[in-house]
Amino acid sequence: LTVAHDTLAGARAAGVLRASRAEIRIGLLGVGHVGSAVARLVFARPHALGRRVRIASALVRDPLEPSRTRALPGVSLTSDPRALFAAAPTVVVEVLGGLEPARTLVLEALARGLPVVTANKALLAYHGEELLEAAASAGVPLRYEASVIAGVPFLGTFARRPLAADVTCLTGIVNGTTNYILTEIGESHPDYASALAQAQHHGFAEPDSSKDVDGLDAVEKLVVLIRQFARLRAAPDAIETTGIRQITAADLVHAGELGGSIKPVVYADWSGAALAAFAGPAFVPRPHPLAALRGVSNGICLRDGAGSVLSLAGPGAGPDITAVTVLDDVLEAVVAKPVRFSAACIASVRPPSSRWLVRITSSGALPFGADVADLLASHGIWIERTSTRDTRHGGDAQWLLTYPSVRDRIGAATAALSAATGCSAFCVRALEEQP
Amino acid sequence: LTVAHDTLAGARAAGVLRASRAEIRIGLLGVGHVGSAVARLVFARPHALGRRVRIASALVRDPLEPSRTRALPGVSLTSDPRALFAAAPTVVVEVLGGLEPARTLVLEALARGLPVVTANKALLAYHGEELLEAAASAGVPLRYEASVIAGVPFLGTFARRPLAADVTCLTGIVNGTTNYILTEIGESHPDYASALAQAQHHGFAEPDSSKDVDGLDAVEKLVVLIRQFARLRAAPDAIETTGIRQITAADLVHAGELGGSIKPVVYADWSGAALAAFAGPAFVPRPHPLAALRGVSNGICLRDGAGSVLSLAGPGAGPDITAVTVLDDVLEAVVAKPVRFSAACIASVRPPSSRWLVRITSSGALPFGADVADLLASHGIWIERTSTRDTRHGGDAQWLLTYPSVRDRIGAATAALSAATGCSAFCVRALEEQP
Repeated sequence: LTVAHDTLAGARAAGVLRASRAEIRIGLLGVGHVGSAVARLVFARPHALGRRVRIASALVRDPLEPSRTRALPGVSLTSDPRALFAAAPTVVVEVLGGLEPARTLVLEALARGLPVVTANKALLAYHGEELLEAAASAGVPLRYEASVIAGVPFLGTFARRPLAADVTCLTGIVNGTTNYILTEIGESHPDYASALAQAQHHGFAEPDSSKDVDGLDAVEKLVVLIRQFARLRAAPDAIETTGIRQITAADLVHAGELGGSIKPVVYADWSGAALAAFAGPAFVPRPHPLAALRGVSNGICLRDGAGSVLSLAGPGAGPDITAVTVLDDVLEAVVAKPVRFSAACIASVRPPSSRWLVRITSSGALPFGADVADLLASHGIWIERTSTRDTRHGGDAQWLLTYPSVRDRIGAATAALSAATGCSAFCVRALEEQP
Repeated sequence: LTVAHDTLAGARAAGVLRASRAEIRIGLLGVGHVGSAVARLVFARPHALGRRVRIASALVRDPLEPSRTRALPGVSLTSDPRALFAAAPTVVVEVLGGLEPARTLVLEALARGLPVVTANKALLAYHGEELLEAAASAGVPLRYEASVIAGVPFLGTFARRPLAADVTCLTGIVNGTTNYILTEIGESHPDYASALAQAQHHGFAEPDSSKDVDGLDAVEKLVVLIRQFARLRAAPDAIETTGIRQITAADLVHAGELGGSIKPVVYADWSGAALAAFAGPAFVPRPHPLAALRGVSNGICLRDGAGSVLSLAGPGAGPDITAVTVLDDVLEAVVAKPVRFSAACIASVRPPSSRWLVRITSSGALPFGADVADLLASHGIWIERTSTRDTRHGGDAQWLLTYPSVRDRIGAATAALSAATGCSAFCVRALEEQP
């Protein structure tokens, strides 16, 4: 563990996953946007899971369709499920979407003792109990982390942790398309139609966007969340579901005036005598953790009986992030325990370059701002913004926000400022607006 | 799965964890704040993990000390590690804190083939490689979810998911005491000393608070995070570490003026040729996800090479939340696969009562606000806030935020308003400020 490495990359590579020799063979059901992204990731990084991964076979409607054969070079394509199972997959990935034939094929895979990974929220919403029972009977894993907030792994986590999962209320934004549309309406697009067109242009919304904008996608995900966290079964059509078609730009302007914004929300609370739930656009006050989620971001807040809140946020969908989550699920479905890694030794840590918040104080009057700026600039420090001056505490004080610099340079510049003017300077780092 | 239940609680109980018969026997190292909370939780909910859990034996400095015997009625207390191991624990929980004897005892437990759960960030920061190697050699789990952001399970999750864990930068708030102190200084306490006293009064800060306020606690946690996410080894004293003692109320006022606040941050970026890292107070701009974390809340943002950000937030510490996380870790350490649950059937879902954002529009002029308020009030709807009126779009429009009501009541009230005045009304739900 103390071997020296020339580069950071070399040091990290030495600490990377310890590979097992057993190959993971995926039977891929469906080669649409997500299926193609799964294949791309497998081809690009066949050892990323610490084992060799390959696509053993892929089920498609038309095995001779050129876009499919191009997406899966060297992979046997078939329209016959028997041929897919005959290719001896060790795990089945279902990314067909929709209810049938997805349901039948997943049941068949489970009956054959094959672990299944799916990203299909509709399948889970309508047939989740049947599929989970089938998986339990067969004693094989059924994983569906990508079905809700695809970029944030949490369903598997809480399935393993019954005390953390013992919450009584959840609030989330689980549809990126509608969050994007409402964010756009609020900021740059005059109305729903043009924001939707923009979302479709960027590929965030399907040409048929009705499942998103009418709230059906969101309520299906809510049913999955209610099953897992409330351990209750709810039919999607039993839950109040509204879409975003009627939300106007003026609604968003005045929601802002009232201290919040309008977001596409799912909500469930089972702390009382009944399950209270809805899916639809809602006014979200600015202090609420979901209020900060803009564009295609998704997130969820879980509240326990004592009022403690845990919140998670990240990318909600998209083929590439879904493929990442599906393949991590593949690993979790195939190996029961966490992957092992060890940390390589590194030679050095350096403090980063960052913006700085600088407090300049004087027992008398501060020097002219232009003089301070000139002196700092002569030491390579440039000022981005300055506060008003504060003389309420007996002296004279001002705060500056600088452009990025290393600590040594800001230290030398403020020391020079102190020496030249008699002022004191105190610095703390400043983060960028986005992490 | 279709059995009818009289109550929600009955329905949920039927869907609860399927209990296994094997008992989990904890060897508890240490009965301080956290150890006592673990014992309380085990006594209160011995079947919460789906298996019977008991404390087989507990190691304390003085087995006759009354507060210890009171905390662990019926449990054999000992100051001799041999007696603890002789009680045949199936898992060891280390909550002694500090480096020794914690290190020696954890190594001994691992050498005996016992899974270990610890909440000890100092132990992991200084001896993590040795302990992880020992666990790997023995082939038993070593779990430490509670060591960083105790209330948010994420370390185990990302250890299982190498693709999701493939990030290049992390930014976090991992010390609740200092976040509480800086929040208080910014809001209600004039200075550091009185905010610290307040934190100590509430039990958020230890009587000796120097590990918190000088940043040592935070940098130890940062070392654990760097090992897991960067797969790099860093010594705590190689990382720039600053404390919060010098932050003043005026600093926080003017940070606000400059568009942010000052927060106790840990940061690491390994996207470049070296590991860049620091632990200390930093200016956090308002749009940053960490800016919203107030009081004792902790959180972390993980950014991948493509710029995608995942953020997690929740309670950072405290004996009770730590005990929850430790016991979930116990279950994960003992059973390799996720616990199984099935969802019970429920009779009904109800839409919740909530505040409402109401848009009232008229092609002519809106009625007087007082008339609208009276009419709504006569249907049981009370107005919390109203927007300015908006006549820019050809008609007359106003937005109201109401006090909580069920959908039927707001629907009836707005229908009556429309009938009486000819206005149109459109309603969306409004969330509370906190989830």
